[in-house]
Amino acid sequence: MKIKGTHQEMIWVSPSNPMLVQTYDQRYFPHQIEIFDIASHEEAVFAIKEMVVRGAPLIGITGAFGYYLTYLEYGSQGKLFKQKVKELRQARPTAVNLDWAIDQMEKYHQSSSKIGAQQLLEKAIELKNDDIETCRQIGENGLALIEEISKKKEGETVNILTHCNAGWLACIDWGTATSPIYQAHQKGIKVHVYVDETRPRNQGANLTAFELGQEGVPHTLIVDNTGGHLMQHGMVDMVIVGTDRTTKTGDVANKIGTYLKALAAHDNGVPFYVALPSSTIDWEMSDGLKEIPIETRSEKEVKYMQGLYNKKMVEVLIAPNATKAVNYGFDVTPARLVTKLITEKGVCDANEESIKALFND
Amino acid sequence: MKIKGTHQEMIWVSPSNPMLVQTYDQRYFPHQIEIFDIASHEEAVFAIKEMVVRGAPLIGITGAFGYYLTYLEYGSQGKLFKQKVKELRQARPTAVNLDWAIDQMEKYHQSSSKIGAQQLLEKAIELKNDDIETCRQIGENGLALIEEISKKKEGETVNILTHCNAGWLACIDWGTATSPIYQAHQKGIKVHVYVDETRPRNQGANLTAFELGQEGVPHTLIVDNTGGHLMQHGMVDMVIVGTDRTTKTGDVANKIGTYLKALAAHDNGVPFYVALPSSTIDWEMSDGLKEIPIETRSEKEVKYMQGLYNKKMVEVLIAPNATKAVNYGFDVTPARLVTKLITEKGVCDANEESIKALFND
Repeated sequence: MKIKGTHQEMIWVSPSNPMLVQTYDQRYFPHQIEIFDIASHEEAVFAIKEMVVRGAPLIGITGAFGYYLTYLEYGSQGKLFKQKVKELRQARPTAVNLDWAIDQMEKYHQSSSKIGAQQLLEKAIELKNDDIETCRQIGENGLALIEEISKKKEGETVNILTHCNAGWLACIDWGTATSPIYQAHQKGIKVHVYVDETRPRNQGANLTAFELGQEGVPHTLIVDNTGGHLMQHGMVDMVIVGTDRTTKTGDVANKIGTYLKALAAHDNGVPFYVALPSSTIDWEMSDGLKEIPIETRSEKEVKYMQGLYNKKMVEVLIAPNATKAVNYGFDVTPARLVTKLITEKGVCDANEESIKALFND
Repeated sequence: MKIKGTHQEMIWVSPSNPMLVQTYDQRYFPHQIEIFDIASHEEAVFAIKEMVVRGAPLIGITGAFGYYLTYLEYGSQGKLFKQKVKELRQARPTAVNLDWAIDQMEKYHQSSSKIGAQQLLEKAIELKNDDIETCRQIGENGLALIEEISKKKEGETVNILTHCNAGWLACIDWGTATSPIYQAHQKGIKVHVYVDETRPRNQGANLTAFELGQEGVPHTLIVDNTGGHLMQHGMVDMVIVGTDRTTKTGDVANKIGTYLKALAAHDNGVPFYVALPSSTIDWEMSDGLKEIPIETRSEKEVKYMQGLYNKKMVEVLIAPNATKAVNYGFDVTPARLVTKLITEKGVCDANEESIKALFND
């Protein structure tokens, strides 16, 4: 997708220096757009830990490149190398994709004594390209659903509501929930996106609005309270969101507030789609509400808001200082409220039978 | 209710000077608590127009005192006086209560040629006291509902979720949605309130959290996205909100986002109560979704956030500058999602028959 009019991926190897990996520093998006250099183990750990990169797929791929850079620095020192790889894993302990990507690198590395820096670099690039292809396929499968609505509306604009950022800034390219939208837009189908602000971290206002704007996709920012009203008045044709974890029965854990939008969609007959790479399906879990652990984050995210003031980023206090806040990061949308799951393999109903049928075939 | 430990009303006549009306300047709550002097027609218009005072009942009563102050200045000049009263009405053209209160003052004024400044002051005070009594009665009627839940829970804390500020800062004392909570708290019933932040203007974070804190009522601030998750996990025993307009059939127009909480309450079997003075019932309307006009406000409220930075109030930009936003002020919760209406006359079901039975008796 584009930044400042040029096609980019979210992480890449410098064309002039194979020992330099680069990414965008997402900490100050959308107000500052700066490239962040990752040229060492330490910088890879920093980028993951300090949220220079965010989004499960991008964290994973950063970890894979981090493994390669760690090998460049410490590959000849057996014990120290192992220690440094461990530190890389611990940069974000709850990020499942980080472990997964480092596992992939490690397994490949150990598969033959002939594997060195060049091969590890190629493996990291392969994982990156796999992610892009997965997102592209999700988009292709979701595109059909947008096209269908567009036809029903005889070519009038399809209004799509999304929550949080399941966009390409969280991946390498395309995104998950945004991928069908970008593909529809590129195909000339008229789309317009209502972007939920997504308090408390404002990923919708900071990231989704930014990436849609860079790509030229028409969109409107709304506060999280607004979606129900829009759906009551026929102003939303479909909802597409991402997911952090999906049970084998189709329950979906996504950014806090997703459940409220699913309820509104259900109450107003608006289809509610969840886009996901199959890697987010947890084949062990069957009851999302009971089984998926929900992270409690710092109350500071609720009480303070980051924004631009006098050309610099500041945090303002938006509640009485003495007030306590609680900050649950995710909620679970039960499968009964999900119209379809959109995966890289195809589209299926949100129930165990349909999910299994899609993935066992 | 209390501010800084002392019982206060939101608007009062200076004990030492009957020509000086005072209120709290709510523009910078909760970070600055300052008294605002209203000693002239011009200051009354300013206080209403610039949102020094906000909340329908408080705006109305400020209008009544404004009428009295306008009489002090212009009462002897027939035509000019009429013009100034008109200006007072136009300080907030959509505020139904403002017109209503000024109508009351005008009608009383014109009822006898003997009515002068002293009588007008007394009339404004009477309207103020009527509002307090209405809110107190709403609280008494709602208290019974809290007591019932408290008994069922054998005295364990009753968890109440509220949206926006239907508190005493919007009225003179007690508030509407908060009145049952304050009365329960004063009676020693254990209550705890989840306060929705209420984007975009953050009345929950700025005002409800502040007034509950000043009164010593246990409470926790949450972002608007959180309520559904809490209700899914049995962490909310009841929802109480206010309303700006109620149809005769029980549809409720309240701050944007109320509908989403009503859906979540319904989905989880949590009772959803709406507290209201009967003056907000629109006896002409029977379909809230179709008939109640919804105000669209400035997109600036979505894109900028006000807060405290370096000990002063500033506004920060929280989205890409180029992004468009839309800002609907209210939504409509259909009567089918409302468990009961709590009024000054008693509690009734949200349907035409029950509402009429309560008010025609």
